Amino acid sequence: MSTAIARLKEEFLRKQGEDAAVLVTSPENRFYLTGFLSSAGAVLVTPKKAYFLTDFRYAEAARRVVSGSEVVCIKKMNDTLRELMEQDGVRRVFVEFERLTLKQAHDFEEAFAKSGIQVEKGGALDGALQELRTIKTPEEIQKLREAQKITDDAFTHILDYIRAGRTEREVALELEFFMRRQGAEGVSFDFIVVSGKNGSLCHGVPSDKVIEDGDFVTMDTGALLHGYHADMTRTVAVGHVSDEQRHAYDLVLRSQLAAIDAVKPGVPCEDIDKVARDILEAEYKGAFEHSLGHGVGVEIHEWPRFAMGCKTLTQPGMVVSVEPGIYLEGKFGLRIEDLVVITEDGCEDITQSRKDLIIL
Amino acid sequence: MSTAIARLKEEFLRKQGEDAAVLVTSPENRFYLTGFLSSAGAVLVTPKKAYFLTDFRYAEAARRVVSGSEVVCIKKMNDTLRELMEQDGVRRVFVEFERLTLKQAHDFEEAFAKSGIQVEKGGALDGALQELRTIKTPEEIQKLREAQKITDDAFTHILDYIRAGRTEREVALELEFFMRRQGAEGVSFDFIVVSGKNGSLCHGVPSDKVIEDGDFVTMDTGALLHGYHADMTRTVAVGHVSDEQRHAYDLVLRSQLAAIDAVKPGVPCEDIDKVARDILEAEYKGAFEHSLGHGVGVEIHEWPRFAMGCKTLTQPGMVVSVEPGIYLEGKFGLRIEDLVVITEDGCEDITQSRKDLIIL
Repeated sequence: MSTAIARLKEEFLRKQGEDAAVLVTSPENRFYLTGFLSSAGAVLVTPKKAYFLTDFRYAEAARRVVSGSEVVCIKKMNDTLRELMEQDGVRRVFVEFERLTLKQAHDFEEAFAKSGIQVEKGGALDGALQELRTIKTPEEIQKLREAQKITDDAFTHILDYIRAGRTEREVALELEFFMRRQGAEGVSFDFIVVSGKNGSLCHGVPSDKVIEDGDFVTMDTGALLHGYHADMTRTVAVGHVSDEQRHAYDLVLRSQLAAIDAVKPGVPCEDIDKVARDILEAEYKGAFEHSLGHGVGVEIHEWPRFAMGCKTLTQPGMVVSVEPGIYLEGKFGLRIEDLVVITEDGCEDITQSRKDLIIL
Repeated sequence: MSTAIARLKEEFLRKQGEDAAVLVTSPENRFYLTGFLSSAGAVLVTPKKAYFLTDFRYAEAARRVVSGSEVVCIKKMNDTLRELMEQDGVRRVFVEFERLTLKQAHDFEEAFAKSGIQVEKGGALDGALQELRTIKTPEEIQKLREAQKITDDAFTHILDYIRAGRTEREVALELEFFMRRQGAEGVSFDFIVVSGKNGSLCHGVPSDKVIEDGDFVTMDTGALLHGYHADMTRTVAVGHVSDEQRHAYDLVLRSQLAAIDAVKPGVPCEDIDKVARDILEAEYKGAFEHSLGHGVGVEIHEWPRFAMGCKTLTQPGMVVSVEPGIYLEGKFGLRIEDLVVITEDGCEDITQSRKDLIIL
């Protein structure tokens, strides 16, 4: 059985009684539990056994990847689910409140009612899965490291590519193509590459704007590898920088280093956010409006958040981004982002790219 | 007001009475109604007015794109929705049964109950939206043409690239990179590039298998442009072909041409499927297991289906793929796919790529 399914049984299912099962159908949670990516399928965990149900397109490949769950090739998903649950004495089945559509829930209820099985639609399962996913296993951390490695390599590569005259869009494509050629199965999200005045758009889309001397170029990128999402931002300058740009860069870097330095187990997440925010706000009031960071894993945004109001305590095994920035409308913007793994006595920064101010 | 919203009011909302509204939150249906792509937002259509609600990240860009709907920049989505509905005298609001999560529906019900507004969770709105989306406007058909043009150009480009010694994965990446450089914002789906014996996997993933002389190479690709999805499959040979390959190719092409020839308004979709299937089955029993085609548009799989059991009548404005194939396990496979627009008196094939047997 996969570690994740074993943990789910131990920490959630066992507490629900002998007649309860768990049914996971969302692609991200299915992948988390089985390590197998597919557009269709379901994980059913009963007190007796774990099953991975999928159709003929995936069954053969799933048998090679999925360990510990019986792979069942289905024609009529809901009928098979009902039969397996009946066979294992299940009377109640927990489903994903936050990820199941009304139609899916309706169809499950209709199908399972034939065997008197009740669908538990509260958010209990979602909470349990979120809690599990928040703490990464060593294998998951290794996958994030490998995804981050490709992301770091792409940054090194792009330093030779960026110059005045290139467009934001060209830089974004070159970063993506490099990662894909290195084996990334995709990108963690639509890359943000913004330059000059566009830099103040923290979620800007790469445009045909030409990069000019004196521009900051902010690149928020990440490779998707083995189903895990890297995330990194670097800001570089082209040609020359003004004193104000240099000052702002140093401040953002200082705020990031201070926040990373504050990361250790047992700290409310909002406190980490505050370390960076206080440093930025002291000089640039209102110039840093987003949160400091977010968990990453099988999705690009996971729990916890380094954000105002997030009282979750940090724990070893969390992998979180630390990404302070300054955005000055009509002038420029910049952001610096690393990924850190929380350890027993602090944290490890798994981002390798340099972050001194680079002027190309 | 956008054509799509006007049609939705006329063909659905007007029939629900003076106190009913429509609330659309799924990204694809929001895009369909507004022409604006965003990760967050909602379209609210009341008998009095249409609103597009989104947050500060998108509000400015939305005002430039969205016509006829008032763009409302929100902080608390559900509160704003409730206030607007109350103000417009709404007592019932239809939501998307097939796309709303249990949590979203629960949160809407909780928020709207404060104003006594009932959430209508049946599938009525989904059906109406599907019906609208099935019939493309001339503007939508133009977007599909442009997406298909990039896809055709990529095929021309790849003919110079494919040769014995390249891997499936290299070909897939080159196709994608070419489309992206031409301005595609993405790809319609993960490309299928399979060669030799892999060709019998109709949903195969491009692998590191090296293409060899005597292989068929099947490429199922499509550019995503302006939010619309192209879809095309071509199979080419490398080096030489056997008599059996040539025979199978000719048969698939003949079945496709016959099916396209049969497309005109007023025909049950299953009949089009049958035209191709009968030709293939006469010689290769059981070698064509998937459906003949599917609608395309703001999603890669839309209504209708050219498939057994689909009794929907064809209508002008539908855009559907026609993609027969033969899959011989352990030997080879091939598929040929075009997109056709159903017209008043037949159909127009908007795929320009040649489909005689090419031996590279």
